[in-house]
Amino acid sequence: MKAEILTIGDEILIGQVTNTNTVWIAQQLNLIGIKVVHMATVSDDREEILKGLENASQRADMVFITGGLGPTKDDITKKTFTQYFGVELVLDEAILVDVSSFFIKRGREVSQLNKDQALIPKGCRPIRNKSGTAPGMWMQKNNVHFISRPGVLYEMKEMMIAEILPAIKAEFKLPHIYHKTILTQGIGESTLAELIEKWEDGLAASNIKLAYLPQPGMVRLRLSTSGDNEKKIRETVEREIEKVIPMIKDHVFGFENYGEEMPTIEKITSDLLKERKQTLAIAESCTGGYVSSLFTAIAGSSDIFKGGIVPYTNDAKHELLNVDKTIFEKHGAVSKECVLALAENVRAKLKSDFSISISGIAGPGGGTPDKPVGFVWIAVSDGKKTLAKSFQFGDDRNRNIVMTANAAVSFLRKFVLKSI
Amino acid sequence: MKAEILTIGDEILIGQVTNTNTVWIAQQLNLIGIKVVHMATVSDDREEILKGLENASQRADMVFITGGLGPTKDDITKKTFTQYFGVELVLDEAILVDVSSFFIKRGREVSQLNKDQALIPKGCRPIRNKSGTAPGMWMQKNNVHFISRPGVLYEMKEMMIAEILPAIKAEFKLPHIYHKTILTQGIGESTLAELIEKWEDGLAASNIKLAYLPQPGMVRLRLSTSGDNEKKIRETVEREIEKVIPMIKDHVFGFENYGEEMPTIEKITSDLLKERKQTLAIAESCTGGYVSSLFTAIAGSSDIFKGGIVPYTNDAKHELLNVDKTIFEKHGAVSKECVLALAENVRAKLKSDFSISISGIAGPGGGTPDKPVGFVWIAVSDGKKTLAKSFQFGDDRNRNIVMTANAAVSFLRKFVLKSI
Repeated sequence: MKAEILTIGDEILIGQVTNTNTVWIAQQLNLIGIKVVHMATVSDDREEILKGLENASQRADMVFITGGLGPTKDDITKKTFTQYFGVELVLDEAILVDVSSFFIKRGREVSQLNKDQALIPKGCRPIRNKSGTAPGMWMQKNNVHFISRPGVLYEMKEMMIAEILPAIKAEFKLPHIYHKTILTQGIGESTLAELIEKWEDGLAASNIKLAYLPQPGMVRLRLSTSGDNEKKIRETVEREIEKVIPMIKDHVFGFENYGEEMPTIEKITSDLLKERKQTLAIAESCTGGYVSSLFTAIAGSSDIFKGGIVPYTNDAKHELLNVDKTIFEKHGAVSKECVLALAENVRAKLKSDFSISISGIAGPGGGTPDKPVGFVWIAVSDGKKTLAKSFQFGDDRNRNIVMTANAAVSFLRKFVLKSI
Repeated sequence: MKAEILTIGDEILIGQVTNTNTVWIAQQLNLIGIKVVHMATVSDDREEILKGLENASQRADMVFITGGLGPTKDDITKKTFTQYFGVELVLDEAILVDVSSFFIKRGREVSQLNKDQALIPKGCRPIRNKSGTAPGMWMQKNNVHFISRPGVLYEMKEMMIAEILPAIKAEFKLPHIYHKTILTQGIGESTLAELIEKWEDGLAASNIKLAYLPQPGMVRLRLSTSGDNEKKIRETVEREIEKVIPMIKDHVFGFENYGEEMPTIEKITSDLLKERKQTLAIAESCTGGYVSSLFTAIAGSSDIFKGGIVPYTNDAKHELLNVDKTIFEKHGAVSKECVLALAENVRAKLKSDFSISISGIAGPGGGTPDKPVGFVWIAVSDGKKTLAKSFQFGDDRNRNIVMTANAAVSFLRKFVLKSI
C-alpha cells in the first residue's frame, strides 16, 4: 500500500509556515505499514491542485491531502474536489449539526459561511471534525483513495486518530514495517561510518536499509526493514543491532523505537533519575531557563525536578545563590569557580540529590579574546563531589544554547551513572 | 523565475525528521523575487531522484535539491546527477584542499571516503562548504538550473547565503515580491473574516492576495503581491493595510515584514521594555523555565531580563520566594493568592520593574474537578499594582505550556502599555 502526502498551501511555498502536518502523518502511516513514496506541496490554485491529485494518483494507492479547507475565502480544496471527481456538493445533515453546535456551544451565531462547511461532494464519506468545523473528506476514484483533512494540526491529528487510521487498519491488509534507531553522541558521521563499515556492507543481505541522521550533538543510525512476518523482521533487526553495538559502545546513549517518542537525552536522564528515585535542581545563566524547560516539558517531571534558578545577572547569582562577589572580581561569572559555587548552592537550596549549573557566553555579543562567544562552563554536583568542564561552541546564539543544554544533560547523565 | 525545491530523504518520508531546510530556502527565494511553484520529497532511490529531477525541470526554471549528499554510504545524489546530466566525475583540486583542511584542522586523518567528496560531475560549478565537507553542485540542462546542497541545515544555509543567493541576484533579472503580515490575537479566523469581508473583496483589484494563517493563540493575515516596481507594490500593500487596521484594531499586536524574523509576542514585549529601559523577572511553576527561555533566546535580553525562578514544588515557592505556607493550605498552589505573592516577591527579589508569575496544572496528571488539567493562574506586577487572571486551557501538556506562555506575555505587554 503506497501513499502520497499532498499539501496545499501558498504559505508553505513562500516558507512562512513549516509543514509539520506532513511529518506527523508520515510517522502514523509508517507505523501501520503504509509506505509513503512521495510528498508534494502545491499552491492554493485550482489547476495546481488538479495536477497534484492526478500526479499523486499515478504514484500511490492512497493520497492524503492537507490544507485548503476551512471557513475562509481562500479555501478551494472542496471545490476542486468536486471538479476532479465530477460530482456536485450536497448537504450532510450530520455535519450541519456538528458545525452548528460548535458555534452554539460557544455562544456564537452560525453564519452562512459556517453552514456551508456541511456541504460535501456527493459520494464522499465525510469525517467529523470534533475540534473545529471543516469536515474531512474521503473519496475514491479508480481504486485510489483520496483523504482530505483540514490544515490545522490539532484538528487533523484528532481526525486521523479517531476515525481515519482505525478505518484504514480495519479495511486494508497491510505489511509490516519495522525501524529501530541507535542514538549516538560524541562521534562524527564519517568516523562512525568507518567504524561500522564491514557490518554495514552485510545489511543488504538481511533486507535492512541503514541511514545516518546527523543533528547537533547527535548522530542517529536508523535500521529499516519490511515484510509479512512481524516477529521475524523485528528479530532480524534486533540481531543486527546486537552485532554493531560492541563496535560503538562508548557513544551509544539510547534507542528510538519506531512509533514511540524519540527519547531525548533529557528524557533518558529524567527516566534514569526516576528509576533511582533521585531529584535534580538547575542553576542556568546563559541557557536562561531552556534546560529547566526541557525537563519540565516531560509529563511527571515533578517526580524528579525540584526547581531551577535563572540568575541572569551577577547580582542575581550573588543574591539568589550566594556566589561570592570576589569570584566575579577574580575570575568572572563565566568561570570554573562560579559554576562550582552555583552547582553546590542550588543543590543545597532546593535540597535535591543532583544539580547542574551553567554559565557562559551565548552571543552574539559579550565575547572577549579570552572567553569568546560560545565559551561555556558547566558543573554537576551530588553534594559530595562537584565536577566542572568547559566547552567551546560556535557563533550562533540559539545553536549555542541547544549545544550547551545537550552537553550539560549528557554530563549529568554520565555523572549519575558514575562513569566519569 | 519559477523554482522547485526537491528534497531527497527517506528519513523525511517516514516522518522521522521535519523538513526545515525547505522552509528556509523558500523564504530566501521569495525574498529575492523567485516564485516557488512546487515542493517535492522523494526517496534516496536513483529512479525516484531521476523522476524527481525530470518532473521538476518541467515545472521550474531553477531546481533546488537538498539531501543525499555527504560522506556516508547512503548518499546517491552525486551519482544520480552524473547519470541525469550524462557526465563523469572529476577531481576538483580546490574542493580537495577544503575537505583535507577540514579534517587536518581538527587533528583527524583524511580518509578516502572523505577525499571522494572532492569528486564532482564534469561541467559542474562546485560550491564550497565552509562548515562541513560535501560541496554543493550547480549544473544546467536545457536552460534549467539545478542547484544541489547538503541536507545539514547549518551547512546548507551558509552555502546559500555566502555564494548561491548572491550569484542568483547578480546573474538574473528578478521581479519583486512583497508580503506583509498583520498579527492578531484573541479573535477566531471566521469571526475575523466576517469583520473584514468587504475589504477583502476589494483586494483582487489591487493584485493583492490575502491568506489566513491560524495557529495557537494567534491568527496572521498575510497580504501578498508581486510586480516590477518595488516601491509601487509596497505602497499598494501598505495602503490596504491602513484601510483594514481600524476594523480590527483591538486584536492587532504587531506586523511581520517579509524577510525579517516573525516578531514573536515575546520579542515585541522585549523590545517594548527595551525602549522604556525597563526590566523583567519571572517566577514560573508549571511552564518550568519555558517563558524565561523565550526571553533569553533573544540576543541582548540581558538588557531587560534580570532573571527567573522555577519554584516547581510548594517548598521551593516558600523557600525561594517566601510564599506563606497558609496559602497552600487555604487556597492551594494554583490560586490567585499564590501568583500574587509570587509576582510581588520575584520582582522585589530580582529588583526588576515588572514581573510575571505563573502557577497551573500543565497535565496530563494533577487535575481535580475544581482545578482541571489546563487551569492556570497568571499574575503581573510593577511594584505598585499586581493583577491576576485565570485561564482554562486544554488537555495537552506541551500545548498548555505554549498557550500559557503566550497568554502570560500578552498579559504583561498590555499591562506595560497600561491598556488594562
